[in-house]
Amino acid sequence: MSKKVGILMGSASDAEALKPLVETLKSFGVEYSAHVASAHRTPEEATEFAKGARSRGYGVLIGCAGKAAHLAGVMAGHTTLPVIGIPMKSSFMDGLDSLLSVVQMPAGVPVATVAINGAENAAILAVQMLAISDKGLEEKLVAHKQAMHDKTFKKDIL
Amino acid sequence: MSKKVGILMGSASDAEALKPLVETLKSFGVEYSAHVASAHRTPEEATEFAKGARSRGYGVLIGCAGKAAHLAGVMAGHTTLPVIGIPMKSSFMDGLDSLLSVVQMPAGVPVATVAINGAENAAILAVQMLAISDKGLEEKLVAHKQAMHDKTFKKDIL
Amino acid sequence: MSKKVGILMGSASDAEALKPLVETLKSFGVEYSAHVASAHRTPEEATEFAKGARSRGYGVLIGCAGKAAHLAGVMAGHTTLPVIGIPMKSSFMDGLDSLLSVVQMPAGVPVATVAINGAENAAILAVQMLAISDKGLEEKLVAHKQAMHDKTFKKDIL
Amino acid sequence: MSKKVGILMGSASDAEALKPLVETLKSFGVEYSAHVASAHRTPEEATEFAKGARSRGYGVLIGCAGKAAHLAGVMAGHTTLPVIGIPMKSSFMDGLDSLLSVVQMPAGVPVATVAINGAENAAILAVQMLAISDKGLEEKLVAHKQAMHDKTFKKDIL
Amino acid sequence: MSKKVGILMGSASDAEALKPLVETLKSFGVEYSAHVASAHRTPEEATEFAKGARSRGYGVLIGCAGKAAHLAGVMAGHTTLPVIGIPMKSSFMDGLDSLLSVVQMPAGVPVATVAINGAENAAILAVQMLAISDKGLEEKLVAHKQAMHDKTFKKDIL
Amino acid sequence: MSKKVGILMGSASDAEALKPLVETLKSFGVEYSAHVASAHRTPEEATEFAKGARSRGYGVLIGCAGKAAHLAGVMAGHTTLPVIGIPMKSSFMDGLDSLLSVVQMPAGVPVATVAINGAENAAILAVQMLAISDKGLEEKLVAHKQAMHDKTFKKDIL
Amino acid sequence: MSKKVGILMGSASDAEALKPLVETLKSFGVEYSAHVASAHRTPEEATEFAKGARSRGYGVLIGCAGKAAHLAGVMAGHTTLPVIGIPMKSSFMDGLDSLLSVVQMPAGVPVATVAINGAENAAILAVQMLAISDKGLEEKLVAHKQAMHDKTFKKDIL
Amino acid sequence: MSKKVGILMGSASDAEALKPLVETLKSFGVEYSAHVASAHRTPEEATEFAKGARSRGYGVLIGCAGKAAHLAGVMAGHTTLPVIGIPMKSSFMDGLDSLLSVVQMPAGVPVATVAINGAENAAILAVQMLAISDKGLEEKLVAHKQAMHDKTFKKDIL
Repeated sequence: MSKKVGILMGSASDAEALKPLVETLKSFGVEYSAHVASAHRTPEEATEFAKGARSRGYGVLIGCAGKAAHLAGVMAGHTTLPVIGIPMKSSFMDGLDSLLSVVQMPAGVPVATVAINGAENAAILAVQMLAISDKGLEEKLVAHKQAMHDKTFKKDIL
Repeated sequence: MSKKVGILMGSASDAEALKPLVETLKSFGVEYSAHVASAHRTPEEATEFAKGARSRGYGVLIGCAGKAAHLAGVMAGHTTLPVIGIPMKSSFMDGLDSLLSVVQMPAGVPVATVAINGAENAAILAVQMLAISDKGLEEKLVAHKQAMHDKTFKKDIL
Repeated sequence: MSKKVGILMGSASDAEALKPLVETLKSFGVEYSAHVASAHRTPEEATEFAKGARSRGYGVLIGCAGKAAHLAGVMAGHTTLPVIGIPMKSSFMDGLDSLLSVVQMPAGVPVATVAINGAENAAILAVQMLAISDKGLEEKLVAHKQAMHDKTFKKDIL
Repeated sequence: MSKKVGILMGSASDAEALKPLVETLKSFGVEYSAHVASAHRTPEEATEFAKGARSRGYGVLIGCAGKAAHLAGVMAGHTTLPVIGIPMKSSFMDGLDSLLSVVQMPAGVPVATVAINGAENAAILAVQMLAISDKGLEEKLVAHKQAMHDKTFKKDIL
Repeated sequence: MSKKVGILMGSASDAEALKPLVETLKSFGVEYSAHVASAHRTPEEATEFAKGARSRGYGVLIGCAGKAAHLAGVMAGHTTLPVIGIPMKSSFMDGLDSLLSVVQMPAGVPVATVAINGAENAAILAVQMLAISDKGLEEKLVAHKQAMHDKTFKKDIL
Repeated sequence: MSKKVGILMGSASDAEALKPLVETLKSFGVEYSAHVASAHRTPEEATEFAKGARSRGYGVLIGCAGKAAHLAGVMAGHTTLPVIGIPMKSSFMDGLDSLLSVVQMPAGVPVATVAINGAENAAILAVQMLAISDKGLEEKLVAHKQAMHDKTFKKDIL
Repeated sequence: MSKKVGILMGSASDAEALKPLVETLKSFGVEYSAHVASAHRTPEEATEFAKGARSRGYGVLIGCAGKAAHLAGVMAGHTTLPVIGIPMKSSFMDGLDSLLSVVQMPAGVPVATVAINGAENAAILAVQMLAISDKGLEEKLVAHKQAMHDKTFKKDIL
Repeated sequence: MSKKVGILMGSASDAEALKPLVETLKSFGVEYSAHVASAHRTPEEATEFAKGARSRGYGVLIGCAGKAAHLAGVMAGHTTLPVIGIPMKSSFMDGLDSLLSVVQMPAGVPVATVAINGAENAAILAVQMLAISDKGLEEKLVAHKQAMHDKTFKKDIL
């Protein structure tokens, strides 16, 4: 049975922007859990979640935060699972602070960063990771890619 | 037997900066191949490599390019494998152009972006992805994390 | 008879912002076709369009995309026609990501970049290229320049 | 006989960085002239060059300047020929000032902007424009593209 | 009798944002004229205005433009009067393009740049320049400074 | 007796740039300890240091890190002592990543941020905090300010 | 009895955004005064406030300004009390001008900078400074941190 | 007799970069004085200089500082003379901090900002201001402009 995806967001106010993340995971039939836990306000919960994740059946973790977005990096410090970071759009330069805080990790502790507010892409990336050794998921990814292709191409639109 | 990591770099001049990438993969015993193929100068080779990668035993792809760094994104358009992007440091704003070209992918086609010139982290992230379902690699990651920890902490340095 | 202008946009949602492009081309009597084709979601269609463009009577190509805007660069990799790139305004720093992804092309594969959302200017630039050896178009450009001049100058406005 | 390329640079100190521009034009057998003329220090010479360019046999103009790089834009105000702008690398943010001064032209007066210090690409773009209706130049571009391809691709470099 | 202030704006759409400029000049009793003339669309009018300004009684010129804002710099190329530049707020990064295009002038041709959309400050700066040798204007500036002071200071506001 | 200042730096390579920090503290006679502890590589040591700091006699903490500089923020999550953050100059945009990662903390968990590489200022700020209720330290600050003043002012230097 | 917090804001229009600052101070029972005084329009009032602050019972000062935000730095030039700077969100790049004007102070004169519009954090930081030697305030900070923690953590939110 | 130019620089280390400023003033025969006085370290000297400048025969003031460059703005707060600001190149983003701190002055207190490290242009701008009502200086400016023109234009340089 496929591993789960564990999601932490730094604030309950991020939940709305993260709906495409969980909807995409559901559409691939991937199980997940999604909690609010901040690297700064609830550091114990955030680190405990990351530390115990592998043994509780998680295969990929996702951290979502804005501004000085330390959450994904802190999670990555406590696990050997791949951690995906979603820089949430902040009110400063459309999330440049979030992006740099998430992506510029020091050598040894990577965070797999997707685009600012890239909730859907975080889900697809998580599925791609799980699909490396999961034939069923791989086939769903191929179908998803084809559907996306067919929906996109349009001749003589203007 | 573990899957391979497939690496494309946009220019032979990137090879020097990518040595930590292949050295880290080797230290984990992960097989790889590394070619020069540009999204703009040799587009067929780049796309063919990505298209056929899964069937040739690759589990993760890595694209490394600078400036208008389209390579990882173009690879991601032709595979369902996870694609890691390394934005190479360019001569413009230390690689801001590379970073934005790699990370800001549209919905549906993610690139797992690491820090600018983050060659070592790309390798670790690739190993983490392969280790989701590879107990042996996971144990190596745990040992690597512990060694990194032990080398870092220093009391009363000043 | 004058050559055609071939337009690809990365997403159907760009069509509204590109109306000044096709309206300007029409006002000069230049033929065009405009399709939706993404470098990442429909890469085959995008590259096929570029590859065959010269032989199908196109003289200039235009690629319009936002965020990690690879479309114009990918087109330029598959043709020797001049390719104009329009960086579409994204939700990140008003399109800085688009601008850098379009303009910072590596040596050997230029993209003629216009301003962010510069749809009208892309059309005029395409006409200027076609007019290099087309006396009729040149005369229309001279008239267009004069009309623009006459509409702009205003004395004692405040 | 093919039209000429007219080059203005804002300062004699730009000449060194522009050598790839004239060398590339020569390699394609395209005639050019290259003068120093500043939009601010020698405005009459700059505007006179642009105004009379078409009637003196030029097909494409190129303006090269740094910092508040107004040269290409000012040239474009005085001609209906296509004007290519090369933002020269300045000592401020690697030429961000030059890039924005060149590319962000208002509607009606485009400048075909290449990468910062993109001297070689400006030449190739100029040749592409001239080749729209010049079969001989087109064939040289195809050969140039093939040679670039063959020089780039390298297997197993690391 | 005091010299006049000559104002050019690149587009009639700038007029609304420039009302504080002319209102402030009026409040100091300084004469001005304000025309629409673009460095790119009506270059002759713009340069003629600058060239003849001193002999027609102007003491200070002001150029107001956005995006690739060349107007003040072009005016400065044609006069020895001080030229004040107002970078108009554009739709790209709140006018960063305008600011850099105005302020980063090469050695020899200064533009006295005020804040983005700094219409009121351009007027005060123009008055300060005229007041260097105009005792009456100087006294009005002292009164203006005192009035501004008195309106600003507020105790225990929260 | 005055409280101590506790310093953590993310990497031993920061030690050189932090010498002015400890030298300034010594010149004020303030005790300190300075360890290498990373938020990502040695998270337990970093958080334990912050958690126990007040009870071990520290009055102010200082966190120094570069790139995705999470150290000061993570420390602030585990203590109610004031935490000063020094964004270390990184190889990306002179430390813009470090600055934004340190200063843009979410509501509830402040980090008192000083300038990039502002080691000396971090020390003075720490002394100022301790001096709020320490008359002896206050007198030393007054003397330091006077000495700085006397060293700075110079007449007719050019 | 605990020392007071002295607040200056550069403009009465900042008052609304600073309400969380004074409300947070009140919730901790810390006395404050808050005036409008500009470094440029009322420089005497601003510097007099800073100069006399310690002797009038203030323990921490806070300066709040936008754009070329000199207020906190000017205050810091006239006192040895710790000065907290709040960069107010301006209409240029969401306050990048304010942030850099506040945080990049030269060696010798620190400003403890919080996030852009970080009114609440400025208050908490001020309380943390006062609490270094105030057991009662420290206990309130511990309770505040716990309450913030309890309000944040949420399981299974999506 | 012509009025003098009063120059303050924030640090003695700026003197080298300001040599073109005083050399240019000398070449026009304009008197000046140049002192080191910091807005933060010697605020009294800086403000006293500005306050008394007009009565001591100065016609234009120039403030030169880097990083959080408050000097020109603080001077402008204490005089009705025009104040020119030179943003000195700092070690952060080539002086973006200096530029924004100098140019983004609030309404009512302008600083006439020249390019980063624009020492020569500050001198020419000061001379232009003094020349508004000084026929002799005006003639020198015309000659200077002509000499600059003649030195710049060069035919067939490549």
